[in-house]
Amino acid sequence: MDAAEFRRRGKEMVDLIADYLENIEQRPVYPDVEPGYLRSLIPEEAPEEPDTYEDVVKDIERVIMPGAASPACTELETVMMDWLGKMLKLPEDFIAGTHGQGGGVIQGTASEATLVALLAARSRAVRMILASDPQRPETGITSKLVAYSSDQAHCSVERAGMIAGVRMKKIPTEQSDKYAVQGETLRRMIQEDKAAGLIPFYFCATLGTTPSCAFDHITELGPICNAEKIWMHIDAAYAGSSFICPEFRPLLNGIEFADSFNFNPHKWLLVNFDCSTMWVRKRSDLIGAFKMDPLYLKHDHQESGRYFYTDNSLFRSLKMWFVFRMYGLKGLQDYIRKHVELAKEFESLVRADQRFEISADVVLGLVCFRLKGSNEVNETLLKRINNGRKIHLVPCQLSGQFVLRFAVCARTTESRHIREAWRLITQLAEEVMQELPH
Amino acid sequence: MDAAEFRRRGKEMVDLIADYLENIEQRPVYPDVEPGYLRSLIPEEAPEEPDTYEDVVKDIERVIMPGAASPACTELETVMMDWLGKMLKLPEDFIAGTHGQGGGVIQGTASEATLVALLAARSRAVRMILASDPQRPETGITSKLVAYSSDQAHCSVERAGMIAGVRMKKIPTEQSDKYAVQGETLRRMIQEDKAAGLIPFYFCATLGTTPSCAFDHITELGPICNAEKIWMHIDAAYAGSSFICPEFRPLLNGIEFADSFNFNPHKWLLVNFDCSTMWVRKRSDLIGAFKMDPLYLKHDHQESGRYFYTDNSLFRSLKMWFVFRMYGLKGLQDYIRKHVELAKEFESLVRADQRFEISADVVLGLVCFRLKGSNEVNETLLKRINNGRKIHLVPCQLSGQFVLRFAVCARTTESRHIREAWRLITQLAEEVMQELPH
Repeated sequence: MDAAEFRRRGKEMVDLIADYLENIEQRPVYPDVEPGYLRSLIPEEAPEEPDTYEDVVKDIERVIMPGAASPACTELETVMMDWLGKMLKLPEDFIAGTHGQGGGVIQGTASEATLVALLAARSRAVRMILASDPQRPETGITSKLVAYSSDQAHCSVERAGMIAGVRMKKIPTEQSDKYAVQGETLRRMIQEDKAAGLIPFYFCATLGTTPSCAFDHITELGPICNAEKIWMHIDAAYAGSSFICPEFRPLLNGIEFADSFNFNPHKWLLVNFDCSTMWVRKRSDLIGAFKMDPLYLKHDHQESGRYFYTDNSLFRSLKMWFVFRMYGLKGLQDYIRKHVELAKEFESLVRADQRFEISADVVLGLVCFRLKGSNEVNETLLKRINNGRKIHLVPCQLSGQFVLRFAVCARTTESRHIREAWRLITQLAEEVMQELPH
Repeated sequence: MDAAEFRRRGKEMVDLIADYLENIEQRPVYPDVEPGYLRSLIPEEAPEEPDTYEDVVKDIERVIMPGAASPACTELETVMMDWLGKMLKLPEDFIAGTHGQGGGVIQGTASEATLVALLAARSRAVRMILASDPQRPETGITSKLVAYSSDQAHCSVERAGMIAGVRMKKIPTEQSDKYAVQGETLRRMIQEDKAAGLIPFYFCATLGTTPSCAFDHITELGPICNAEKIWMHIDAAYAGSSFICPEFRPLLNGIEFADSFNFNPHKWLLVNFDCSTMWVRKRSDLIGAFKMDPLYLKHDHQESGRYFYTDNSLFRSLKMWFVFRMYGLKGLQDYIRKHVELAKEFESLVRADQRFEISADVVLGLVCFRLKGSNEVNETLLKRINNGRKIHLVPCQLSGQFVLRFAVCARTTESRHIREAWRLITQLAEEVMQELPH
């Protein structure tokens, strides 16, 4: 949608909202629908090609209004999570459908999803241990639990451990392994911890780490977790969007061993913040960990088993529905591919310049690079770039090296922006290298 | 703003967004401002009388754009929390100003605020105990901690205890005490728990409970918590908005003993969801409990001490700024008062009908009432009302009685809606009473 169409559609939408508010008294206060009403009104999968805007807007009255705000919000969320799950070719276990035990729910951020999965895992672990040893005090169990994640994982994983009050151990990674957690390392840590009387219960794998977009080896790690009854959560916050493209989907192989999986369509799938999509293999693991049952939250369909998130009445899925239909699967795939191509273009420019080096494989839209030389010269270069206020880079540390990260992530980025950024970076690099002693 | 003006302003706003996006390349990528830049550009307090819409919109370019999305979002949030804190006449300790140690932050929900306060309290308690007994293992401390809240508190308080992995005890309340937690009861429970080797560390007081809008006696409870070094959090999710009116402000007396305080402007102060405002006496208690320090989150102003929430870059305060200015303090006070008057009008209708009784004091916009008679007849009446789909009531239990709750909470509610609702309720009550055996 270009700016001219945005102006026209935006103004139509203002009128639609005003009409709704002016006539709200004509509408029933409470909807007259049965659980599952919405699923039959829309297709089972996202369209390949874009729908027209008119069709999308017409469906608000046809599909949403009969279900009012609630339960329409819950029903649309369940179906949108199925649409997106199918776009990613998630295993059938993660799709709610009409009879599945798994399914998806929208969280605010990947940090939230990591925490929710950790709490569900903690609750499951305590339940399993109490089942075999009912006399054991619960606080005694919690103090023995141990969770794991990569030393490359986002800091929110460590924070989730602090919040839940459980040990969170960092698994060391190596440059030679491309900063991916290896099965052998995890296996050894588990054995050592068990020998010391601890109870391993949760592993957070990362697909696409923040520093360098590294991918943990989940095909190796998953079976270890399954054998040890460890909950495997996959955090693919950034990289997850790319899995809608067949050529990137192999990066998600191993998902069949996971208990939960999360990524952020608000990062790279054109859905506005906040929209962090999380799937679980067993909805009951999540519901059971947080269940509360006061009279003021009871409703007639309590026992239908249809509603995954009765405590959650936000309408967060409308924007997914609009985006998936306005772009179509093909449009979204094109968008991902364009960003990866632009990152590759930047990588070529870096590789063609002998003064620079690439610091990690360029798999998606992130390019880690640096001037060959000291950390100091690279820190100075970064400061100079950011002080220019024309482009903005966020650094990372890889094996003790200070590294610059060039991320392609804006909707309107084109090749000319890449070339302009590189021109600016090389110009500043020249200045820095002339000023600093070698 | 009426519908006609909404249409006009809404369309102007669509053009403003389109203009911004079309010309975005002319703007600097990174802002060139110093910490605290925003505070000097706007008044220190919310206006008494409404500003004009034109002035509000002009200020976007003057105040927000120079600070881009970030840090403008953080700076505006700090100042808006000060504005609102001053509207509530919070003690000076809770106002950030330019040199204060306290201040406010926007959370998503009151449930989130309760949890955040509990985690900060847990962290403070562990720190204090380790300071006097450095050898004590941390997991041993957590397993001895005990938190308290009213048996009338929202279920999210209990859930916060589950998430944090600490004991949460419910303090019993009585009908004769209007369902308020009494100082004597809390004191006794603390003494018993300390005698049993537990460590009391957190009390969540409620001002305006969900079932009946009851108010805990914080002037009595606060000094007990202070003497015992127990963190007192005040959850005033619904009632808090009313404290901007001088006649309701006494309900907040005792706030001077609290460590943290929270209410939801998205419930009753015309700010759209989500906007749950939380103040703490010491920002460092909150920051310290969650601090993470990876390279990718570092910035130049890290040590300025100005930024309360460096990890939080959402623009959640713009809507507060708009609402406070478009209504002015007086407009917001009128809005609160009108709802309370409408609730009192409903209360009079109930009291004038001998078949009904009022089940709890009507302090704000909630009326708890029931048919004199069995729970069964009241449950049947509620079903009949909600099945009619013209009004919707949520029930509660008070001292074993099934009670109907009539809540005035929509922006456009008028006296005629109250009378129409009562006509409908009495008509259905007659039907129910004729059908059921006495």
